Amino acid sequence: MNSKSAIGMFDSGVGGLTVVREVTRLLPEEEIIYFGDTARFPYGSQAPSRIVEYSKENATFLLSQGVKALVMACNTCSAHAYELLQESLSLPIVDVIAPGAKKAVAATQSGHVAVLGTSGTISSLAYQKAIEKENPAVRVTAIACPLLAPLVEERLFHHPATELIAAEYLKSILKSDVDTLLLGCTHYPMLQPILQKIVGNSVSIVNSASACAEELVCVLQEKKLARASSGQIAAHRYFVTDDLKKFQDLAQSFLPGIQGEFSLASL
Amino acid sequence: MNSKSAIGMFDSGVGGLTVVREVTRLLPEEEIIYFGDTARFPYGSQAPSRIVEYSKENATFLLSQGVKALVMACNTCSAHAYELLQESLSLPIVDVIAPGAKKAVAATQSGHVAVLGTSGTISSLAYQKAIEKENPAVRVTAIACPLLAPLVEERLFHHPATELIAAEYLKSILKSDVDTLLLGCTHYPMLQPILQKIVGNSVSIVNSASACAEELVCVLQEKKLARASSGQIAAHRYFVTDDLKKFQDLAQSFLPGIQGEFSLASL
Repeated sequence: MNSKSAIGMFDSGVGGLTVVREVTRLLPEEEIIYFGDTARFPYGSQAPSRIVEYSKENATFLLSQGVKALVMACNTCSAHAYELLQESLSLPIVDVIAPGAKKAVAATQSGHVAVLGTSGTISSLAYQKAIEKENPAVRVTAIACPLLAPLVEERLFHHPATELIAAEYLKSILKSDVDTLLLGCTHYPMLQPILQKIVGNSVSIVNSASACAEELVCVLQEKKLARASSGQIAAHRYFVTDDLKKFQDLAQSFLPGIQGEFSLASL
Repeated sequence: MNSKSAIGMFDSGVGGLTVVREVTRLLPEEEIIYFGDTARFPYGSQAPSRIVEYSKENATFLLSQGVKALVMACNTCSAHAYELLQESLSLPIVDVIAPGAKKAVAATQSGHVAVLGTSGTISSLAYQKAIEKENPAVRVTAIACPLLAPLVEERLFHHPATELIAAEYLKSILKSDVDTLLLGCTHYPMLQPILQKIVGNSVSIVNSASACAEELVCVLQEKKLARASSGQIAAHRYFVTDDLKKFQDLAQSFLPGIQGEFSLASL
């Protein structure tokens, strides 16, 4: 592995494509190998021990492809398996939680951040702990939003039903001093316009996918693993464990004009 | 095992409680032992081989409790594991798919039935095949409704967002000759009022939970395993593999006033 190698990225499904989008925006010359474990999606409701097992298997697949760095583009995996993978593997690993927490803490003026996530992510307390680690004085209101990822999977990004449901989830913070909304699920950036409309412009939305991509830029530079800028967009490869057609269709909605090679993989 | 033994019932979570409701209505004197595999919910997205494995484990748990009959109160398990369990176990087993299909075929006058289900159930073609087996002349429009079960889990039974989403799923049949709507997911009876409002009174809704309960009545009578009517409601026991509190809360919404003993179980 060297700077010319690809970046490996994994998620339980399509959600991590919001991270692909941000990484492509910041590092267009980097080749990405994406692994979406669609056959075992969703991870959110699985036991932590199983999440660890799945994360290891996904990482092993990407290592076999010779990647130079790993991005855990999945909040559930980041919550339960980041430290373990970091201890057991020698290549640089970036998760989605720590960078998002750091960015939210930097963004808040009022010292009150709201985090949205799946039930699994919220009950793991991963964001709450990551924010506390950055700054124990920052208050956190954590809101489990079990319907938002399914709504995104159904591509109802701008649907009135999505707005009604999101408004319900956000009700408790509308009249509070929360000034920063952290999107703690890789699906949620697809709902950023609707969420911004609900919370208004006085609340900054921190997208953990873009925070993760920014962290990756730093890590690659620090480890001297960044590719030289070529002025060209590198090729991407996408592997999924099930239902390639559904993944490709959703990928087109997440990243219109997405190009690359799509294949089925087995673990 | 004899007629005094309990009926065993399993599902991946709370959905099967709609079957409990129907069985209690028809057979109040029967004791029910319910097993909800909440730790591994949802089953819908898992590989068929895993569904078979889970179904066997759930059945084994209930058999260890000495049940006299098994109800597979889960469409995913019924689709993938019914025949296998029926071949390998000696006690009577009732699934949710065959009875629902039979009832829908009997109900339709126009010969055109619509089936709603999760993506997993619809793509398994289980209802389509079961209806064809009953009467090959009946046409079937199968509609995957991935958001309906999550909406029920969030208890949005009468929410405007649920109505908007359900209306979208049902759009294609509104101006068709469909006269029978088969609810092919144990969560959906909770949405029956909203679904009836959308399709109008000229469409009959067939609830596969109640069809399953009716089938159970026949099977118990045929096998001489029915309890004598006592005029009293028998005690029920509920076992779940995770998050007992969430199950109890949801159970109260599904079956207001639900009583019984609730415990955590491990497989």
